[in-house]
Amino acid sequence: MKVSIALIGVLVSLLCVTSCSAEKNNKEWRVLDSSNTILLTLPHGKVVIELAPQFSPKHVAQFKQLVKQGFYDGVTFNRVIDGFVAQAGPKEDSEKDKSVPLLAMESNWSTDSTWSFTKVQENDFYAAQTGFKESFAVAYEPTNVQEGTGKAWLTHCPGVLAMARQNEADSASSHFYFVIGQAPRYLDGIMTIFGRVVYGMQHIQAIQRTEAIEGEYAVDSRDYTAIVKMEIMTDVPKAQQIHIEVENTASSDFLERIEKRRHRTHEFFYQKPPPVLDVCQIPLRSRLVK
Amino acid sequence: MKVSIALIGVLVSLLCVTSCSAEKNNKEWRVLDSSNTILLTLPHGKVVIELAPQFSPKHVAQFKQLVKQGFYDGVTFNRVIDGFVAQAGPKEDSEKDKSVPLLAMESNWSTDSTWSFTKVQENDFYAAQTGFKESFAVAYEPTNVQEGTGKAWLTHCPGVLAMARQNEADSASSHFYFVIGQAPRYLDGIMTIFGRVVYGMQHIQAIQRTEAIEGEYAVDSRDYTAIVKMEIMTDVPKAQQIHIEVENTASSDFLERIEKRRHRTHEFFYQKPPPVLDVCQIPLRSRLVK
Repeated sequence: MKVSIALIGVLVSLLCVTSCSAEKNNKEWRVLDSSNTILLTLPHGKVVIELAPQFSPKHVAQFKQLVKQGFYDGVTFNRVIDGFVAQAGPKEDSEKDKSVPLLAMESNWSTDSTWSFTKVQENDFYAAQTGFKESFAVAYEPTNVQEGTGKAWLTHCPGVLAMARQNEADSASSHFYFVIGQAPRYLDGIMTIFGRVVYGMQHIQAIQRTEAIEGEYAVDSRDYTAIVKMEIMTDVPKAQQIHIEVENTASSDFLERIEKRRHRTHEFFYQKPPPVLDVCQIPLRSRLVK
Repeated sequence: MKVSIALIGVLVSLLCVTSCSAEKNNKEWRVLDSSNTILLTLPHGKVVIELAPQFSPKHVAQFKQLVKQGFYDGVTFNRVIDGFVAQAGPKEDSEKDKSVPLLAMESNWSTDSTWSFTKVQENDFYAAQTGFKESFAVAYEPTNVQEGTGKAWLTHCPGVLAMARQNEADSASSHFYFVIGQAPRYLDGIMTIFGRVVYGMQHIQAIQRTEAIEGEYAVDSRDYTAIVKMEIMTDVPKAQQIHIEVENTASSDFLERIEKRRHRTHEFFYQKPPPVLDVCQIPLRSRLVK
């Protein structure tokens, strides 16, 4: 099947019926807010993280405060499981660890008829609908179709930054993790996601794993990857700042691109895959700007 | 919900109705066949790969022949896209490249009523059923339920090894890739998967990316990661051999483990996720043996 531009237009507008009405900004790229952008310096490279105060304000506020204090400088990634997560935090139950207040979960927010997002797919395993909201992968479940109410939450795609916790819901403090493998969507809604990597994900992937397989020597904790420095971008000297723009997932350019991705018109696809999209398998582009 | 061992037993036997009857070997671990195991030495670590001659015999035969010739020693990973694939091969259109015969696709094999696999999930986006066959993630689609016929194929989970190709179906030769990101399942059935990483996946994840984002300097090809050596394990001097056993995905231990994974009985899950499993999100354990 050849998908014409006209057809893509129709598909795009269909996708937008319930979800795009409030999206005003049609620019292809979106400038990050430097005051909600983190520069993470690892021994082997630099990583830029976009925080999400619009979704998880209390987690972002506490995380930024810790970053400003230099809390994470020298902290190691002490639970790094290939294909799963790279987690960092102070020594468990240390004074430093216990000094940080606990945070209440931030997820599963209620939405009304004015809420919108860029819908990508219906009926994935974990949600009635998936898509993007301000470049974050989200899931959406209608609760009352007539009233237009529902609930939404951020989903655990590779590259997201979330706060670890104890068994209790409201027990996160300072230990955080990046998802480094196939999306652990079963954690959706019970962990607070509060950011995502927008630059340097390969350096997150290169963090030393801490788990040895059966029969192998345990990894020496002196080999764990330590954070050299974690800073809010506005606090970084101008010459060392990294300025990133990310794809605007509310733009018509983006919608067109995901519809092309869904329909795989390139001749490489001598047999077409099913026209479905895994929200965690859609790369979101970043670009470096002066 | 608390899932009792008895309930797990019932679930396991339900899972097996159509799929486990022919699985005889109930041992928890499976020894790899050294003659179909590859030792890949990278500058930063060693990787062990299990080949799949039972699924893709011609690809495995040609790959092993190339490995034996030392064809891949010094070859670079020249297309490495974070979150997608790490691909290696000789210089495009070089004499070396053109010297290798083209391979016909090996996927989508027909099955009859004697065929069995360990079913994990129904109705994922890309297949009626997913599961494991000899530790490889497979998808299955019945074609005639009464006769018990169907078709099956290997799926693109992280860590699989597959042959790249040109636009034509039967155009693979020597260029191969590892999946390093969220499963690109849209490639299922149109690419030949012929192995998977069973040890050292973190070293595959640390391969130098070759794609720069817009606005950044292009990656210097002299920085590409080169293969130090690729050998069939039986050709490696005994003292340097790495012996791996992998989880036997046909065992009752494995079935029990995935059912526990599905139902998440640990108190950490203060709210239970939907009882579904993404076949690419189930870690398969390996262990090192003398």
